[in-house]
Amino acid sequence: MISELTKPTVLVDKPKACKNISDMAKKARNSGCEFRPHFKTHQSAEIGKWFREQDINKIAVSSLDMASYFAGHGWNDISVCVPVNLRQMEQINHLSSQTRLHLLVESIEAVKQLGDSASGQIQIWIEIDTGYHRSGVAWDNTDLIKTISGMISQNPRLEFQGVLTHSGHTYRARSQDQIKGIYLDTLEKMKDVKRQIEATGQKPCKISIGDTPGCSVMTTFDSEIDEIRPGNFIFFDLTQLIIGSCEEADIAIGVACPVIAKYPERNEIVIYGGAVHLSKEVILLNENEKSYGMVCQLLDQGWGKSIADVTVTELSQEHGKISAPRAWIDSIEIGDLLVVLPVHSCLTANLFQTMATLEGEQLSCFRL
Amino acid sequence: MISELTKPTVLVDKPKACKNISDMAKKARNSGCEFRPHFKTHQSAEIGKWFREQDINKIAVSSLDMASYFAGHGWNDISVCVPVNLRQMEQINHLSSQTRLHLLVESIEAVKQLGDSASGQIQIWIEIDTGYHRSGVAWDNTDLIKTISGMISQNPRLEFQGVLTHSGHTYRARSQDQIKGIYLDTLEKMKDVKRQIEATGQKPCKISIGDTPGCSVMTTFDSEIDEIRPGNFIFFDLTQLIIGSCEEADIAIGVACPVIAKYPERNEIVIYGGAVHLSKEVILLNENEKSYGMVCQLLDQGWGKSIADVTVTELSQEHGKISAPRAWIDSIEIGDLLVVLPVHSCLTANLFQTMATLEGEQLSCFRL
Repeated sequence: MISELTKPTVLVDKPKACKNISDMAKKARNSGCEFRPHFKTHQSAEIGKWFREQDINKIAVSSLDMASYFAGHGWNDISVCVPVNLRQMEQINHLSSQTRLHLLVESIEAVKQLGDSASGQIQIWIEIDTGYHRSGVAWDNTDLIKTISGMISQNPRLEFQGVLTHSGHTYRARSQDQIKGIYLDTLEKMKDVKRQIEATGQKPCKISIGDTPGCSVMTTFDSEIDEIRPGNFIFFDLTQLIIGSCEEADIAIGVACPVIAKYPERNEIVIYGGAVHLSKEVILLNENEKSYGMVCQLLDQGWGKSIADVTVTELSQEHGKISAPRAWIDSIEIGDLLVVLPVHSCLTANLFQTMATLEGEQLSCFRL
Repeated sequence: MISELTKPTVLVDKPKACKNISDMAKKARNSGCEFRPHFKTHQSAEIGKWFREQDINKIAVSSLDMASYFAGHGWNDISVCVPVNLRQMEQINHLSSQTRLHLLVESIEAVKQLGDSASGQIQIWIEIDTGYHRSGVAWDNTDLIKTISGMISQNPRLEFQGVLTHSGHTYRARSQDQIKGIYLDTLEKMKDVKRQIEATGQKPCKISIGDTPGCSVMTTFDSEIDEIRPGNFIFFDLTQLIIGSCEEADIAIGVACPVIAKYPERNEIVIYGGAVHLSKEVILLNENEKSYGMVCQLLDQGWGKSIADVTVTELSQEHGKISAPRAWIDSIEIGDLLVVLPVHSCLTANLFQTMATLEGEQLSCFRL
C-alpha cells in the first residue's frame, strides 16, 4: 500500500507509463519509422520489459555503462547517444562483441581513433547540430560532414548508418507551435545533410531524430525520418508540461514525501524530500516564481491533480520547503504523505536504486 | 594512475581532506567542545575511518538510512539532524537498540508520538530556528520551547540533550565578516534559549551548532557551545570558496571528466560529465555568470589551480559544456581528462556509489 510508505519513494504509474509508450510506438509505426526509445530516463531493467511487451527491441542510452547494464538484460541493439568517449575503447570492443552497438562520431579525430582501435563491427552515426549547439557537426559544415562520412566508408569495421540529431532547443520552446517550428526546421536541415552525403555515393544515409517535445507534439513523422529516439515521454514531468508537450494527466512519475514540519505562520511546510530525492533542476512557473516541484495529494490509486498555489520553493540535501496558503497547511498533519511531481523526471529517477509502481512492484535501476 | 581514468570519476585528495578534518578537530578541542562531524557530505564508510584515526567517535547524518549504514560500520553515537520522520518509527526503535541515537524534535506532535512509540532510550534535541527559516522552533517562541522541553522531561524514554541549530543563512553571506556576524547572532539567541529552558529546571541544556561557513571562519568557539556539527568542510567546494569559508587550495574533491568534443568556433568544448555526475547545483561567479563548476588541469598528483575564464556553463544528463578562450581550447585534445571543482560537494558525492583517492583507493558510499 502506497499509503504505508515510510520515506521518500519514486512512484511510477505503470498504466500511464505504458500508455505513453504505446502512444509513441503507434505514431512511429504509422509513420513507418523505427522507434528506438531512450532508456536514460528510467534506467530500469524492469521498465525495459514494458517496452519489450510492445515489440520494441532497439534502444538508446547515454553511456557505455548503461549500455552494458541493458546488454546484460538481453538488449542486443543499443545506440549510445553521446559523442564517443575514446578513453573507453576496451569497453566499446567488449560491448560490440555482445550486442549490435551504435556509436556517435562528430570529429575526424574520433573516427580515426575509433577506426584504428575497433576490434569488431560498430554501427556509426554522424551527430549533426541543427541548432541546439550542444554537440554534433554544424549541419551546414558540408566539407567536414563529407570528410567524416568518407573516412567511415573506408574503414571495414565501421558501418555507416546515417545522420543523427538531438534538437534539444525544443526545450526552450513555450508552445506547441514553437516546437513544431523547430521540428520542421530540423527536418529540412537533416534532409539537406542526407542529400549531401548521398551525393558522394555514401548511401543509404538514414535520418535519426529524437527529442521528447518534438516527438510528442507531432502526430506523424516525415517519410524521410528513419528513426525517433525520445526518452522522457515515458514519464514526462513539469518541464514537458510547461513547454506544452504533455498534459498533467500524462505525468507518470511522482515522489512520495512525508511531512516533517509545519510553519503556518510563514505559509510553509517542510517535507522529508530534498535535492538527493528530486535533484536541483528548477523551473520558472512564471516570470519569477521558481519551483522544484508541484505538489499533489496521495490517493490509494496514485495521486490527485496538482494543488493550486502549493509548490516546492527550496531544497537542501534532505529537506524540501513547500510554500502554500494557510488554509491548505491547516489541513495537513505532520506524518502525512504528499506527492511531488518532479521538474525533470530523468534526473529524479537517476537518484534512486529502485522505484516502485503504485501496486508496490519494485523496479531496480542502473546506478553510477 | 589517475591519468588512466576512462570515465567521470570523483577524486578525493586524501591529504587535503585529512588536514581539513584535523584543522576542525583541533579548533573544537581547543575550544573545549565536542566535534560531531556531519557525514552527509561524503556518506562513505572508508572516509569515516579517516575521522576515527583522529579520535572522532560521534557523528551526525541526514537520514535514518544513513544512520543505519554507519551503525553497520561500527559507529555507535549518531545524531540524525533532520526533524524526526514519524513514519520510520520501526527503524528508529531498531536503531536505538543498536546505537546511542540522537533525534531532533520541533513540534508538540513529534514529541508526543515519539514518546508514545519509542521502545528504547532516545537522546532528544530541540531544533531551534535562529534565522535560516528552514526547520526548527523560532528561537523566541519561548512558550513552545518550554512546552516541548517539559514534555521531553516527563517521558522516561526521551533523554533531553539540549538545543540544536543549523544557521544555514551563512550560505547567503559573501564575506567572512558577514559569516561571523551570523555566528555571533546565532550564539546570543541560543544562549538565551538555553537560559529560558534551564530556568524551568530542565538542565543541563547543551548547545549544538554546525554550519561549515561559521565553523570554518571562527578560530575558536564560545565556552557555552557544547558541540559543533559541520560537514562540508572535509571537501569544501565552489560555494564555500565564494562565500569566503575556504581557499581554493583547501578544496579536496574534483570530478575527472574526459573531453569528447571541441568547438573552437564557438569557444566551447564538451566533456563527458553532466548533471548525473556534478548535480544541477549552480552558482553565480559574478552578477550574471552562472557556473556548474570550475575547471583544472589533471596532474599526476591531483589537479592544478582553476583556469581563468574556463567554466562549466551548461549541463545536460551526461554532457557538460565548458566555455573557454580559443587559445586554451586549441591546447586541449579530444580524449584529454579535465578536473571539475564542484559547486556543492555533498550533492556531487551523493551521485556515485564509489569515489577514488588520488592513489587509486576506492571509497564506497551509501546510496539511496
